[in-house]
Amino acid sequence: MDEVLADPIFKFIELYNRDYGISLDLKLDPGNEIYHHVPEHINNKWFDYINEKGFFRHLPVIDGGVEAVKKLQEKYEVYIVSAAMEFPNSLEDKRHWLADHFPFISWKNIIFCGDKIVNTDIMIDDRARNFVGFKGRPLLFSSPHNLLLTDYERVDTWQQVLDKLL
Amino acid sequence: MDEVLADPIFKFIELYNRDYGISLDLKLDPGNEIYHHVPEHINNKWFDYINEKGFFRHLPVIDGGVEAVKKLQEKYEVYIVSAAMEFPNSLEDKRHWLADHFPFISWKNIIFCGDKIVNTDIMIDDRARNFVGFKGRPLLFSSPHNLLLTDYERVDTWQQVLDKLL
Repeated sequence: MDEVLADPIFKFIELYNRDYGISLDLKLDPGNEIYHHVPEHINNKWFDYINEKGFFRHLPVIDGGVEAVKKLQEKYEVYIVSAAMEFPNSLEDKRHWLADHFPFISWKNIIFCGDKIVNTDIMIDDRARNFVGFKGRPLLFSSPHNLLLTDYERVDTWQQVLDKLL
Repeated sequence: MDEVLADPIFKFIELYNRDYGISLDLKLDPGNEIYHHVPEHINNKWFDYINEKGFFRHLPVIDGGVEAVKKLQEKYEVYIVSAAMEFPNSLEDKRHWLADHFPFISWKNIIFCGDKIVNTDIMIDDRARNFVGFKGRPLLFSSPHNLLLTDYERVDTWQQVLDKLL
């Protein structure tokens, strides 16, 4: 979900700005996480933000995500698989966010987990660690933190996903 | 989780008793669900109960479940996989219940889903529908509703699970 369907980075920057005056047009350098871009004494703050109830409730949708998932559903059984379990306060926010933006995804096709031990043919993910042990075709969805990785088939946008899979 | 690690039947009977005077020592007949045992005009009530926030928060643990999972962890990577997604209000209750009773299970090893499309070697489950498409070894954990099924390797207790797997 995060950085593939939902945009938490935008929200992080907004919150850092609210609390510490971080520039709202902050661009993350390739290979970097948001916490590499803020002063050291507040770089753990992102963890507090994530753990706050409500953080995941109103994130923007990544460009083209809704339309792309709808189109993929015509050819594929699409599952939303989120490593949400690390943040218990995110579970219901994420469930409601999906109901708002992806109401055409059945509850049967939603998975909140830790390790993504799913048995699918394709996995679209921004975190390479989720591809460990995965036996299908991994598609690395570009996000600032993964831009230096070269080991995986990469997609920069949802349009590129559609071009590859449809 | 339900009817394998956690006991919702006991809770259902308690709630029916509170609201409608259903016998607290109700025994479910083989092949039956709780809603086959209550008068027709209230047999949908179990669905209301499940959807209530708090229902899954304080369920009893199925006999021997905690000790058995601990022992299985010595030999296996154990995942808790619950079809919780149908009931959004259950997600945080179930997460907290696991933290209370199974604190030795990492968040990485917890999965809340709809379809159980997990890639594991063994699946212990009371619902045969979760074995559809599963490529590993299914163990049907006995519960009143599944007692008439004969197509699966069956375990009646956690001790029997340990006898088979250790």
